Amino acid sequence: MPLRLLVIGGVAGGATAAARARRLDEHAEITILERGPYVSYANCGLPYFIARQIEERERLLLATPESFARRYRICVKVQTEALELDRAGQRVRIHGPDGDEWLPYDRLILGQGGLPVRPPLPGSDAPHVFTLWSVPDMDRLDAFIATHRPATAVVVGGGFIGLEMAEAFHERGIATTVVEMLPTVMSLMDPEFGVQVARELEGHQVHVLTDTGVQAVHTAEREVELTTGVRLPADLVLFATGVRPELTLARQAGLEIGASGGLVVNEFLQTSDPNIYAAGDMIEVEHLVSGRRARVPLAGPANRQGRIAASNAMGVPMPYGGALGTSVVKIFGATAGMTGLSERAARAAGFDVGVAIVHANHHAKYYPGARELSLKLVYDRTNARLLGGQAFGHAGVDKRIDVLAMALLGRMTLHELAQVDLSYAPPYSSANDPVNVAAFVGENDLAGYSPNITASQLADALQSSAPPLVLDVRNPDEYLAAHIQGALNIPVDDVRARLSEIPRDRAIAVHCKSGFRGHLAARILRQHGYTNLVNLTGGWTSFALECS
Amino acid sequence: MPLRLLVIGGVAGGATAAARARRLDEHAEITILERGPYVSYANCGLPYFIARQIEERERLLLATPESFARRYRICVKVQTEALELDRAGQRVRIHGPDGDEWLPYDRLILGQGGLPVRPPLPGSDAPHVFTLWSVPDMDRLDAFIATHRPATAVVVGGGFIGLEMAEAFHERGIATTVVEMLPTVMSLMDPEFGVQVARELEGHQVHVLTDTGVQAVHTAEREVELTTGVRLPADLVLFATGVRPELTLARQAGLEIGASGGLVVNEFLQTSDPNIYAAGDMIEVEHLVSGRRARVPLAGPANRQGRIAASNAMGVPMPYGGALGTSVVKIFGATAGMTGLSERAARAAGFDVGVAIVHANHHAKYYPGARELSLKLVYDRTNARLLGGQAFGHAGVDKRIDVLAMALLGRMTLHELAQVDLSYAPPYSSANDPVNVAAFVGENDLAGYSPNITASQLADALQSSAPPLVLDVRNPDEYLAAHIQGALNIPVDDVRARLSEIPRDRAIAVHCKSGFRGHLAARILRQHGYTNLVNLTGGWTSFALECS
Ligand SMILES: Cc1cc2nc3c(=O)[nH]c(=O)nc-3n(C[C@H](O)[C@H](O)[C@H](O)COP(=O)(O)OP(=O)(O)OC[C@H]3O[C@@H](n4cnc5c(N)ncnc54)[C@H](O)[C@@H]3O)c2cc1C
Ligand SMILES: Cc1cc2nc3c(=O)[nH]c(=O)nc-3n(C[C@H](O)[C@H](O)[C@H](O)COP(=O)(O)OP(=O)(O)OC[C@H]3O[C@@H](n4cnc5c(N)ncnc54)[C@H](O)[C@@H]3O)c2cc1C
Ligand SMILES: CC(C)(COP(=O)(O)OP(=O)(O)OC[C@H]1O[C@@H](n2cnc3c(N)ncnc32)[C@H](O)[C@@H]1OP(=O)(O)O)[C@@H](O)C(=O)NCCC(=O)NCCS
Ligand SMILES: CC(C)(COP(=O)(O)OP(=O)(O)OC[C@H]1O[C@@H](n2cnc3c(N)ncnc32)[C@H](O)[C@@H]1OP(=O)(O)O)[C@@H](O)C(=O)NCCC(=O)NCCS
Repeated sequence: MPLRLLVIGGVAGGATAAARARRLDEHAEITILERGPYVSYANCGLPYFIARQIEERERLLLATPESFARRYRICVKVQTEALELDRAGQRVRIHGPDGDEWLPYDRLILGQGGLPVRPPLPGSDAPHVFTLWSVPDMDRLDAFIATHRPATAVVVGGGFIGLEMAEAFHERGIATTVVEMLPTVMSLMDPEFGVQVARELEGHQVHVLTDTGVQAVHTAEREVELTTGVRLPADLVLFATGVRPELTLARQAGLEIGASGGLVVNEFLQTSDPNIYAAGDMIEVEHLVSGRRARVPLAGPANRQGRIAASNAMGVPMPYGGALGTSVVKIFGATAGMTGLSERAARAAGFDVGVAIVHANHHAKYYPGARELSLKLVYDRTNARLLGGQAFGHAGVDKRIDVLAMALLGRMTLHELAQVDLSYAPPYSSANDPVNVAAFVGENDLAGYSPNITASQLADALQSSAPPLVLDVRNPDEYLAAHIQGALNIPVDDVRARLSEIPRDRAIAVHCKSGFRGHLAARILRQHGYTNLVNLTGGWTSFALECS
Repeated sequence: MPLRLLVIGGVAGGATAAARARRLDEHAEITILERGPYVSYANCGLPYFIARQIEERERLLLATPESFARRYRICVKVQTEALELDRAGQRVRIHGPDGDEWLPYDRLILGQGGLPVRPPLPGSDAPHVFTLWSVPDMDRLDAFIATHRPATAVVVGGGFIGLEMAEAFHERGIATTVVEMLPTVMSLMDPEFGVQVARELEGHQVHVLTDTGVQAVHTAEREVELTTGVRLPADLVLFATGVRPELTLARQAGLEIGASGGLVVNEFLQTSDPNIYAAGDMIEVEHLVSGRRARVPLAGPANRQGRIAASNAMGVPMPYGGALGTSVVKIFGATAGMTGLSERAARAAGFDVGVAIVHANHHAKYYPGARELSLKLVYDRTNARLLGGQAFGHAGVDKRIDVLAMALLGRMTLHELAQVDLSYAPPYSSANDPVNVAAFVGENDLAGYSPNITASQLADALQSSAPPLVLDVRNPDEYLAAHIQGALNIPVDDVRARLSEIPRDRAIAVHCKSGFRGHLAARILRQHGYTNLVNLTGGWTSFALECS
């Protein structure tokens, strides 16, 4: 008897699982149930179609029921919802074009993903208010734009989908405002990155309001009312306020749900029912850095989990290692990316956190086109292990994030990152890649050879009862342009000659523009007996981002 | 008494060591000896100045004797050669603008690099024949171009410097031919990459002659005579035939030289004389993949070794982990890169080698601008450990190479590469990055689930007494355009229906365009009882590169 495999959900998790299952078992009976009209669509491409950067809608449909039948002999039932799961009977009640029916299974794979949250505010269900997850969502939004030619839009939520959509609306000529409840957009990243992202948006006339919520959508007036009472014109409203895993069926069937809110699976992606596996946005997995169970709702993990869930369901054991939460987003010409734990997440997880920040050229400075890149490493002070990395810039960001993802996977330390040979020729990097340099900075911090202070730590210290002396070792013109109040300015190359001006009885925080000259000055001072001394990591650039 | 540190050589290895030494010891007496007129110059940038992609010559000078004095209180003696090393007396005889003198040292760091080899051919010392290593070399070449306006150039040697210079000459309007003795250019990479590089050059009207040497330069006729007897017009000749480490002083002083031809150092970069350290192109180091001592003459390692040599020389122990040989080169719009061992090098080193090749889009196919990237993984069949990676393409090559470099550093296996979360959004990658996919292919090979054959293995097998049947599962139009002689064409989606046409008593090599459909067909066939079956990794694309 051929094995009967049923897959619920036909996108990254489900469709991949089904395809893989076929490759593993030529004789199984494989069925995909998908409640929407399409399978294997590229959710991640939806914003780019709205932006018209992708011109052909068909490009978003990576497979069809017909192609699944032809290539994989997989039966795809679209417009077919799984309504009830009878675990004891190993069957699923479905509702489709031909009505209701019970489908039996030997193995079931759940790849049901999630659904965008639409907050229950007055007016949030009006016809000009949207969320975006599927192709039909996109079609509706696109048709609305074509028909109503909105002049203004409000995007509620400054996560990556909200920002991609804000850019898309802007590309369509719609004056757009992003409204974010938290203090910064891209709030999975540390605040200084959100600030850079917001600047990029503002630089392209997309407005950003942070620390602001929405309390109502006024349909008649085409306005959105903010928690501040202010009203914004909004011919179009998009809620991009997060995604909730689709667990209706799982709950109904009594499958175990985890503390993170995702479906519980073991390392073989098997749920609490041994015949049921799951993959993608609906599950919780081990976070490879924190070691905790977490939801990591991203397309890469969903695809790989789908492949692995199928292997295990078909009897070919393949453990799933866990996720890093590596992610990246394009914001106009800029890129923001992260992997592992942010500084905030690392502190929250109880690590003894160290931070190193560099603002470095993405390739050799002397080669034309070099762009500055901000790179932040978060590490464990007790053992120099990397905990996470974040970057922002206009070139080379995704590369550094991927390098750091590999470091996290390998549980590497700063010492390994300081020495690794990354590819270098002037069009690609510098002889010491920014990753190497950031690791030097971290090593120097941990060795006590050049201890770091972060901008927000410095800001706090300056508010304290015994504020450190700020020694600004930039050139006078840089100092005059803007500086920390009360800072003493001695350019780095003059420090040796002007030691007498630097008090010996106070804590000193040295800084320059980005950290390098501060390090040099710190090394000079330390060897002249100044030991109560720190260097501002990321320098003035980071201070300006974090503290203004 | 301040420690007296002498550094010989003022570029990547030496200058970095000196700067680091100052940061470590504010009170040491530090002197750099440099026989040329400049320190801290960007050798790697020289070709781009010749090409006029870098417009200001000064940008190549990253530091000067004055800046070293001002910032680091380091005494730089340019135009000063170290002529003799008296280890017993801890002193070096130098010859500089003020004549000869003996300089004493407590610690000596050698960062003497190497010198380009100029083969002793008739005419190879003529005034229109050049090598390129330093700024004066570049100045001479640049002046020659300005004065003599050469119409034709021959570059002897198809390594990265030769190719960068061929491009530079082309940019200056000079009709250029690259002459390479080996069967392909970029011969540190496997041949199929050299073929792609040569195509890119030819596509830009730079001619490439491989399997060809030069036997004479005819000065009067402005011709180069090839080993084939053919003569090429050459108003300008550049020898880029390799670099020899500068070991005159080391030999004279009896420092140990290794089998690879580099200076022997221990893990603290200490030579056989405990007071003498060394860094950069002149030393041999541990290759992190092969475990053997090797020369890795590249700027990144030189810089990091300089930093580490200084630490150890100044009494702050810092072990050097070894090198990966990661490198990258731009060829017009294309990029070629590698890390670790090539297939050839891995076989030569005695590994049981496996190979997986994918030709994949550098980012989501549906997002505009996707370019195909060839990615090759070389792994150890006994334990799935990655041994090396190579890539060629027009975007995203350096990123994948850096990811693989990290994998090598972490001694990771295909299983880790198959699962790692690299950053994904459509403008940057696909949900499964090409690195993940290549690792899937390798895993499938090792598991026996979908064994690979390489193009050259297939070509050999086709020449054997019992050649396999080639089953080409591409579409008929692809097959008609070009195919392997004698191949049977059954499109993948028809395989199930046409099993009866496929003989059961012969070895079968399946292939498609790039490997994916071949894998699908292989999985179908295997489960229908065809077990003597392999899939051509990289498909027709690789076959055409390697075997035609
Ligand atoms: C606009 C947008 C942009 C994105 N960009 C990125 C990006 O750049 N990078 C990235 O990593 N991720 C991105 N994502 C997230 C990524 O798309 C998801 O992580 C991924 O699609 C999750 O796949 P999944 O299969 O788990 O779930 P889903 O894609 O949500 O698919 C689940 C499917 O299951 C179906 N289903 C659910 N319940 C039932 C039922 N009871 N019966 C039948 N069918 C059912 C649903 O209709 C749905 O089609 C983006 C998402 C969106 C919406
Ligand atoms: C054109 C070109 C392009 C390159 N591109 C790249 C690239 O893209 N990526 C990459 O990784 N690498 C590249 N390299 C290689 C890189 O430049 C070298 O690996 C690096 O410069 C080695 O540094 P080093 O300090 O060991 O030696 P060198 O740079 O060779 O410096 C040694 C110095 O020592 C001096 N010296 C030697 N003997 C004495 C003596 N007895 N007394 C006084 N002084 C002495 C020499 O004059 C020289 O200035 C390139 C090299 C060239 C020439
Ligand atoms: C110019 C030259 C002397 C600079 O050497 P260097 O000072 O060691 O190198 P950098 O300028 O990159 O500075 C590195 C130092 O600054 C520190 N640093 C860099 N950025 C920093 C930041 N943002 N915050 C704190 N410290 C920083 C590093 O930790 C390192 O200090 P450490 O060694 O004490 O840890 C040297 O690179 C050189 O001569 N190069 C020759 C050119 C060359 O490499 N040619 C071949 C390739 S083209
Ligand atoms: C379209 C879809 C069904 C394809 O699933 P898939 O067949 O598993 O994935 P791919 O097409 O990448 O093929 C991967 C398989 O081909 C193999 N393969 C890929 N390239 C290969 C090559 N060059 N040589 C040999 N094998 C290759 C892989 O090893 C893998 O096979 P395996 O699982 O048996 O090891 C699935 O990706 C999907 O539905 N995606 C939905 C879109 C989505 O991901 N949305 C969210 C992000 S936008």
